[in-house]
Amino acid sequence: MNAELLSVGTELLLGEILNTDAQFLAEELSLLGINVYYQTVVGDNRTRLKQALELALERADIVIASGGLGPTPDDLTKEVIAECMGEQLALHEESLANIIAYHQKIGKRMPQSNKKQALLPEHGIVLPNHNGTAPGCIIEKNGKIVVMLPGPPNELKPMFLESVKPFLMKKSDDVLYSETLKIFGIGESKVAELLQDIMENSKNPTLAPYAETCGMRLRLTAKCRDAEEGRTLVLPVKEKIKGIIGKYIYCEEEKGLPEVVVRMLLERKLTISAAESCTGGMFCKMITDMAGVSAILNESFVTYANTAKMNYLGVKAETLEQFGAVSEQTAREMAQGVCKATGADVGVGITGIAGPDGGTEEKPVGLVYVGVCVGGHVSVQELRLVGNRDKIRYSACLYAFDCIRQKLISNNT
Amino acid sequence: MNAELLSVGTELLLGEILNTDAQFLAEELSLLGINVYYQTVVGDNRTRLKQALELALERADIVIASGGLGPTPDDLTKEVIAECMGEQLALHEESLANIIAYHQKIGKRMPQSNKKQALLPEHGIVLPNHNGTAPGCIIEKNGKIVVMLPGPPNELKPMFLESVKPFLMKKSDDVLYSETLKIFGIGESKVAELLQDIMENSKNPTLAPYAETCGMRLRLTAKCRDAEEGRTLVLPVKEKIKGIIGKYIYCEEEKGLPEVVVRMLLERKLTISAAESCTGGMFCKMITDMAGVSAILNESFVTYANTAKMNYLGVKAETLEQFGAVSEQTAREMAQGVCKATGADVGVGITGIAGPDGGTEEKPVGLVYVGVCVGGHVSVQELRLVGNRDKIRYSACLYAFDCIRQKLISNNT
Repeated sequence: MNAELLSVGTELLLGEILNTDAQFLAEELSLLGINVYYQTVVGDNRTRLKQALELALERADIVIASGGLGPTPDDLTKEVIAECMGEQLALHEESLANIIAYHQKIGKRMPQSNKKQALLPEHGIVLPNHNGTAPGCIIEKNGKIVVMLPGPPNELKPMFLESVKPFLMKKSDDVLYSETLKIFGIGESKVAELLQDIMENSKNPTLAPYAETCGMRLRLTAKCRDAEEGRTLVLPVKEKIKGIIGKYIYCEEEKGLPEVVVRMLLERKLTISAAESCTGGMFCKMITDMAGVSAILNESFVTYANTAKMNYLGVKAETLEQFGAVSEQTAREMAQGVCKATGADVGVGITGIAGPDGGTEEKPVGLVYVGVCVGGHVSVQELRLVGNRDKIRYSACLYAFDCIRQKLISNNT
Repeated sequence: MNAELLSVGTELLLGEILNTDAQFLAEELSLLGINVYYQTVVGDNRTRLKQALELALERADIVIASGGLGPTPDDLTKEVIAECMGEQLALHEESLANIIAYHQKIGKRMPQSNKKQALLPEHGIVLPNHNGTAPGCIIEKNGKIVVMLPGPPNELKPMFLESVKPFLMKKSDDVLYSETLKIFGIGESKVAELLQDIMENSKNPTLAPYAETCGMRLRLTAKCRDAEEGRTLVLPVKEKIKGIIGKYIYCEEEKGLPEVVVRMLLERKLTISAAESCTGGMFCKMITDMAGVSAILNESFVTYANTAKMNYLGVKAETLEQFGAVSEQTAREMAQGVCKATGADVGVGITGIAGPDGGTEEKPVGLVYVGVCVGGHVSVQELRLVGNRDKIRYSACLYAFDCIRQKLISNNT
């Protein structure tokens, strides 16, 4: 079974937005064992959209179209798909009710134009949209499947995972079983070097490394009859890998490092508080990205100015004067100070030069000190990070999370 | 003149990498006034690559192919292009010398396979690669232009700007001039309704609305002889739009709302401090996304627990008891309290239910109160936000920025 992606939107043709939808869908389809041979981007133009859809339907069993389901007249995807598939559009009462409810929820009157979004192909499977107004739809007819999804990634992704993925899983004959190892603190080329033997010789499962903004993941994928057999095939290879780079593997699921650490804190009932300088709230934001963290987080500080570091954390004036705000000593006092000020079990102090300006030869952009205090014991890491301001700040936060993880693990043993 | 993009690479079809090349090229071409009607992604497969190229050559005057110029046998782009354009590949001595020199520079021996990269179409214009080994090439023949570029973005982008852009500028007659209006606090459909007349009747410039995660932008694009004429064409239409939705337009450049507000604070030399509950540091993180904010930011708080709201901000126990942590009154006391505690000129208090859990009928997920205190005067907005946790938090932050903007403007007048 093979699929083709059809992304609709003049904003893509003009280069105004990145096609993250296509990457997401391509990756999901590859995990389902569905081959994608072509991706096409076309604008909000009836003739060209129709030609692109007809071509895709000739070449592929499944066409996944995204975008162009909005309320304005230039949103044409649904009309063109219906026409090509010989479908009439009919008012879908439930969807209309959802769109009205959506507007009530956000306290706005529904513009008449939004009603158009409730018109759906008569024989389609309607896919509810919990994050916007445009419902999606699956049409299965004449041996072909057309899926239409809204363009905004925060609508497309959950809709695909909730409704389309289960639908496609039932259609696929091959079973692919995948496991993921999440890795932090070691470079991709070093991993490739250490695992070269396994990567070259393991045919089932195959191994694929993926770089992430900071850190990486390694995916083991087995062709198998069922998940049970998949697990059996993957297990020995995974154990071999863990024997070589085990200490850098922070999770065996598709989870981020912050989530893994927050779960550890929740399980151990340990509170955390941070004192952030260069990361300016990003570390605490990453903790609160997860719901339910009020059990471990009472307060946290952004101490950007030296006065704030002294007032709230008790960093000594002499320390700042002698070593500077970006120093091992300041990070240490920040981490200790935030524990003392708040009574938190885990304290984090982050201070550095995120750039693009402010670097010197002695203290260049990318120099960051991360202090972590657990049970009164502090350790400070000196990091030399690369990338732009955003990447430096993000990496610094991840190193702080990783340091907490390492300390909690070693406290346990 | 119209162009088509052909991205070659199985890693794109598998969703392993994002197609940032396509966005870059699309935007550059649109700035050159060259229309792009299709973008296609195809894998490293001779048959499908050839079909895709032939189709692109039928539809477009210019085809820009990227990727598949590497030294390995699965890199086929050059061979397929040469075949379709009736070109022989010949050794290009200068390119070979460059490839050898490149390896010397990075201190590595040149693998024999790299020699293949110096084989180029005999009648092509060779494009030197200063950041890698694969040269690019332009072939102009039979009224068609095919450009081939290496896939890695750090090679493709400079090569395009240095060699391809000047080449294409000479071919293009039309100039496009664009201006952007950034809008917040009003829905896309409402804008479409209010501007319907202008959108339908203005042919030059044309108007295009684009939704963003929160807020939107409106682009006015004029076909013209030069930028001067473009400005003249855009101005009256822009003024008409400002007459209708002016108060929602926060910027006439490609800038985000946080940046606009931070610039206002920097200009007016006003310090800011926040007390964040549900946004958990995100608001302050957005301020510190920009460099140079130490002039306006000394400290900021995440006050997640009620005790933290009382201890650091002086929120009254009775307020929390009587109205709850998520209430107009608490947001007000947070904004006032953070100004009092820190002496900041602008204080922000954000409290709400970001979900996915924790909502009640009376206080549902998405209910957020944003308090902003400027010069002792507080106002609190009650928001009913939709979307997932991330979107609710992000929207809440943007409303806080917008509220600051509105207050600073009205203080001025």
